[in-house]
Amino acid sequence: MIVITKSNITEERIQELVQIIEKSGVQAHVSRGTDRTVIGIIGKAEPTLGEHLRQLKDVDNVVKISKSYKLASREFHPEDTVIDIKGVKIGGDNLVIMGGPCAVESPEQIDEIARLVKNAGGQVLRGGAFKPRTGPYSFQGVGVEGLIMMAEAGKKHGLLTITEVMTPEYVDVCAEYADILQVGTRNMQNFDLLRKLGTINKPVLLKRGFSATYDEFLNAAEYILAGGNPNVMLCERGIRTFETYTRNTLDLSAIPVLQSLSHLPVISDPSHGTGRRELVEPMSKASVAAGANGLIIEMHTDPDNSMTGDGVQSLFPDQFANLLKDLEKLAPIVGKRFDTTKEPAEAFATWTK
Amino acid sequence: MIVITKSNITEERIQELVQIIEKSGVQAHVSRGTDRTVIGIIGKAEPTLGEHLRQLKDVDNVVKISKSYKLASREFHPEDTVIDIKGVKIGGDNLVIMGGPCAVESPEQIDEIARLVKNAGGQVLRGGAFKPRTGPYSFQGVGVEGLIMMAEAGKKHGLLTITEVMTPEYVDVCAEYADILQVGTRNMQNFDLLRKLGTINKPVLLKRGFSATYDEFLNAAEYILAGGNPNVMLCERGIRTFETYTRNTLDLSAIPVLQSLSHLPVISDPSHGTGRRELVEPMSKASVAAGANGLIIEMHTDPDNSMTGDGVQSLFPDQFANLLKDLEKLAPIVGKRFDTTKEPAEAFATWTK
Amino acid sequence: MIVITKSNITEERIQELVQIIEKSGVQAHVSRGTDRTVIGIIGKAEPTLGEHLRQLKDVDNVVKISKSYKLASREFHPEDTVIDIKGVKIGGDNLVIMGGPCAVESPEQIDEIARLVKNAGGQVLRGGAFKPRTGPYSFQGVGVEGLIMMAEAGKKHGLLTITEVMTPEYVDVCAEYADILQVGTRNMQNFDLLRKLGTINKPVLLKRGFSATYDEFLNAAEYILAGGNPNVMLCERGIRTFETYTRNTLDLSAIPVLQSLSHLPVISDPSHGTGRRELVEPMSKASVAAGANGLIIEMHTDPDNSMTGDGVQSLFPDQFANLLKDLEKLAPIVGKRFDTTKEPAEAFATWTK
Amino acid sequence: MIVITKSNITEERIQELVQIIEKSGVQAHVSRGTDRTVIGIIGKAEPTLGEHLRQLKDVDNVVKISKSYKLASREFHPEDTVIDIKGVKIGGDNLVIMGGPCAVESPEQIDEIARLVKNAGGQVLRGGAFKPRTGPYSFQGVGVEGLIMMAEAGKKHGLLTITEVMTPEYVDVCAEYADILQVGTRNMQNFDLLRKLGTINKPVLLKRGFSATYDEFLNAAEYILAGGNPNVMLCERGIRTFETYTRNTLDLSAIPVLQSLSHLPVISDPSHGTGRRELVEPMSKASVAAGANGLIIEMHTDPDNSMTGDGVQSLFPDQFANLLKDLEKLAPIVGKRFDTTKEPAEAFATWTK
Repeated sequence: MIVITKSNITEERIQELVQIIEKSGVQAHVSRGTDRTVIGIIGKAEPTLGEHLRQLKDVDNVVKISKSYKLASREFHPEDTVIDIKGVKIGGDNLVIMGGPCAVESPEQIDEIARLVKNAGGQVLRGGAFKPRTGPYSFQGVGVEGLIMMAEAGKKHGLLTITEVMTPEYVDVCAEYADILQVGTRNMQNFDLLRKLGTINKPVLLKRGFSATYDEFLNAAEYILAGGNPNVMLCERGIRTFETYTRNTLDLSAIPVLQSLSHLPVISDPSHGTGRRELVEPMSKASVAAGANGLIIEMHTDPDNSMTGDGVQSLFPDQFANLLKDLEKLAPIVGKRFDTTKEPAEAFATWTK
Repeated sequence: MIVITKSNITEERIQELVQIIEKSGVQAHVSRGTDRTVIGIIGKAEPTLGEHLRQLKDVDNVVKISKSYKLASREFHPEDTVIDIKGVKIGGDNLVIMGGPCAVESPEQIDEIARLVKNAGGQVLRGGAFKPRTGPYSFQGVGVEGLIMMAEAGKKHGLLTITEVMTPEYVDVCAEYADILQVGTRNMQNFDLLRKLGTINKPVLLKRGFSATYDEFLNAAEYILAGGNPNVMLCERGIRTFETYTRNTLDLSAIPVLQSLSHLPVISDPSHGTGRRELVEPMSKASVAAGANGLIIEMHTDPDNSMTGDGVQSLFPDQFANLLKDLEKLAPIVGKRFDTTKEPAEAFATWTK
Repeated sequence: MIVITKSNITEERIQELVQIIEKSGVQAHVSRGTDRTVIGIIGKAEPTLGEHLRQLKDVDNVVKISKSYKLASREFHPEDTVIDIKGVKIGGDNLVIMGGPCAVESPEQIDEIARLVKNAGGQVLRGGAFKPRTGPYSFQGVGVEGLIMMAEAGKKHGLLTITEVMTPEYVDVCAEYADILQVGTRNMQNFDLLRKLGTINKPVLLKRGFSATYDEFLNAAEYILAGGNPNVMLCERGIRTFETYTRNTLDLSAIPVLQSLSHLPVISDPSHGTGRRELVEPMSKASVAAGANGLIIEMHTDPDNSMTGDGVQSLFPDQFANLLKDLEKLAPIVGKRFDTTKEPAEAFATWTK
Repeated sequence: MIVITKSNITEERIQELVQIIEKSGVQAHVSRGTDRTVIGIIGKAEPTLGEHLRQLKDVDNVVKISKSYKLASREFHPEDTVIDIKGVKIGGDNLVIMGGPCAVESPEQIDEIARLVKNAGGQVLRGGAFKPRTGPYSFQGVGVEGLIMMAEAGKKHGLLTITEVMTPEYVDVCAEYADILQVGTRNMQNFDLLRKLGTINKPVLLKRGFSATYDEFLNAAEYILAGGNPNVMLCERGIRTFETYTRNTLDLSAIPVLQSLSHLPVISDPSHGTGRRELVEPMSKASVAAGANGLIIEMHTDPDNSMTGDGVQSLFPDQFANLLKDLEKLAPIVGKRFDTTKEPAEAFATWTK
């Protein structure tokens, strides 16, 4: 941490600042410039020291030079994290495809979609049982029944399953039925939920808040890691900008940036990231070209009649299958392995408890 | 709802769209323009119909013409909502001032600050017992003990109390000790929390999400209102923009806009809205001039040593008192009553259960 | 300027960086922390040195600690700039009101509006002769004829005049007829225009680019000041954010922030800043309460038939007059003088060449 | 255009609105819903009619259903525009690579870089002779001499050339020496410049304003097209968002969106779009995967000593060459042709006047 003083500070006041700093158990190191003086802080400071100093008289600014997250950082953990779930590897040079409907609607619906995801080469079945809805009068999901339907479909077709969990009290039941728990964009800073997810032994896909900086995103991941759960995936799903033609602006630079700042796998969500079906294909390819470790894509057999109204961003099954064929060709060019030939393994024959 | 078709649509396709629309139980009304045809929808449509239609072939766009919130809207409820808590009125032409520290730290601290808030003319004591922190290693608040300390201080000095509740499970205990429950910016779309708050009979101050539109904000309020709790205040606390000099950009246009769209009181938070102590005074005055029904302001006796590091945006007690003196003069010019003379009433002699 | 190194840098590499820095004629000062080493730069560095250093191996970040503008900064010029034009003072504790139509349309229109602005207590007549339009098929203004009409109206009614100049070649003719030249939001970084305005002796009102940071805004002002023209006013006119209900988000924090960073007068434009007539009154009052040195407001006798379509944000004459009455009461509360009694002075009897 | 009325409008007022509309020479068509009434407008309305109507009593909103640009729209011109310059084709299924330094510095520098661009497979040499700089004290470019140096280098190595033009008065001299004129992000709405570019017969690369919507971007292109110059390329170069880790947020969704709204070629600029060298490679690949018709990339033989300080985003020559090798493999997968084998043609043996 570095304290930058105002240009007209007196030598006496500099010494006062040094004393204030050293009182908190760290060392101060003064550099006098022609215009301003800066005071470097050496040692491990309390997290709030910076804010304290910034508000003091004659202090112009305080600049942090260490990162506030540690377990999530690549400096701390240089190797890629590769999460192995029943033989499906997520992270490193593997490309994983997650597909499925916005919401689980019925056993027949999710079974049919699971079959299509598997045939196309996907490895993970996505589907929402509990839905976060911005208005109180919208369809809120089918609940626990949906978890069971999805687990059955995943087992039958040899797919992992991922579902969103919205509140700490539902973490256990979601973890009982699903292989991966997803934290939605509106819950990225639901700290009670993050803490609870730190205590389970199921992998978590954490979506970026739609207005979260990379730093805030990695700090949110740190909550889960600090709780003891090392298996976190980061998911870029679009940010809010002034442009409203697309539902969000998919920030693909986030992929290489997060991969350089962190060792965690980075998944892209072109469905929510654009909100428009016709953009899912080009932005899926762009995500893989940018180095994504995987994609999570909405697909529906009858998107015009999906119950959530998110059908507008869901691919038709043939679009999904054609996209995966193109990704097979694209993946090796950017150094990724896309293993689509895996047969339903024994691992999938039992539930995931 | 209005469906706008592409310019080259055939008459046959228009008739197909009409049939699709009418199948869902509403009426379709076709207007043919020189360039495009529009189909108006008459009757109460399912919430998801619009999204379904938007994705159909030959449909260019779908425009909603009704609002998705109802109980929060001024069209539905033309009179201002005025919330009366132990004789303190919030809403209408009353100006209410809430002041206090970011976090409750000790009985002595909160008692002293309560005394200063009361003396300056404030009516509500603010203070956090549970703190939402963006990193897992920061101070997280003193918990239930803090609620009790604050309730005691409020009772002694004749102040209402307001505190933040972060998770549904803590709603009951917070409601036991505080007069007003606050939902923080990161929880504006924590729908389980909103639903729970709809079931209690304590007023709620709902902070705008730092990237929420007015429409999303009012839909979040609708969750609480729809649950049966009519006493909701809206709080503008700054939005995230490209400008990083201030912690947020305090969007004062939100005050008159929300007051025109809704009947609920609108409170401004210049402390979080700017993140800089020197801006709290001018932005407090600007908020009142723009028509705010109240202010929530951080004040601390020793901001340089506050435990949350938010001291940087806390006023010193004398700044707080001087500001309130200026607001007394300003309020009547914009048609607001600022009643600072109220003595500790009997109402405050008991806790608020 | 401070160079922050990566955490694993070698002592040898630190010495190499020191040599690179000192080669450019400044001194390097090394501070070794427990985690990172920082190198302070002492002396006046080339503007591009920072960018050079940031890209070098083992450099994590470079932080500027001096500001890139100088003439515009309050550190360089602690006293408020007060611009005196024919006895009308702009800056310091004076409140100036500029009013008039978006575009000059006819001699009768501008004469009638000038009369109304003067009667209401305004000191400056605004009006566009050349209009920047986002599409090529929109009304582009009446040109030089409009300048003459406005100069005549100002002279007759004892008002200063302000008009927008869009391109360097029109600076001279605009300066011939108008008292203040305005740079529009889309031209804030039209550097050729700024340079040309630095060479004239007429005051300039520089509007903030709708996506410009405070720092970029002050650097744009620096262009004009560096050219030799000291009479620059800064104008906040709304920034682009995710919220689209208002045309822009009027950033009122800009007023106290710019006044602390700079000595130049700060004017607020609530008409463009909100794009909605019903918000002009509350946001005008809020601007003055926040400390604005003046307002520039659109007013039209027949806004429903204005030629630019900006009528939607123009006040009716009676709204304008009532607003100014309220501002007379508000100004002294925030330490501003609003001098509305000035009679048409001799100074206005001649044109402004 | 559709006028949406408030819910409580009277039949009499509806008739008044119809008369107001029809007075302006278009037809009104009323649709009564259960909640609101809408009035469709049939015929070609004046551009300002919508704004007029929106401000009338009892009008809730006005929705445009036609686009404000025409020549730039794909509806008007369904075929891809392919611009042929001396045999190099830009648009359609061709992939064009433009490379070179931020600024031309010397004949030797630009000659050496041209050789490297050509050898790597690029077709166009970029370089700035006039530089837009945000502060007045920065390096402003070498001027006309730079144009000549670049033209010589292009001729010698068989490359087209592109350079930025900042002001109408320099359009002619830039057009004399360069094959493509570039409009920078800060000039996207410099309407005088756009109009001037509409009158020349050289292709123009128009960069998106860093806060421009797709609609504003296409309207800016419309200015050039409406002037008579059909050869316009659109360039996505990053937008300003709340995320400051990257210099801008490269909005790759813009590529497929602009290609669907318009027939003009879409070029991506990953150098300015990210501002960080290490992101240029992944974002270049992502751009091509998203369907870009070309890339414009900064490359420098000695980026650490570039004169503009933009070296931080410039590739080294070997990085540039390796990237183009990867793009050769990637292009066919997304249906693009990357023709890198073209020998210096006769066409390049003369200047381009």
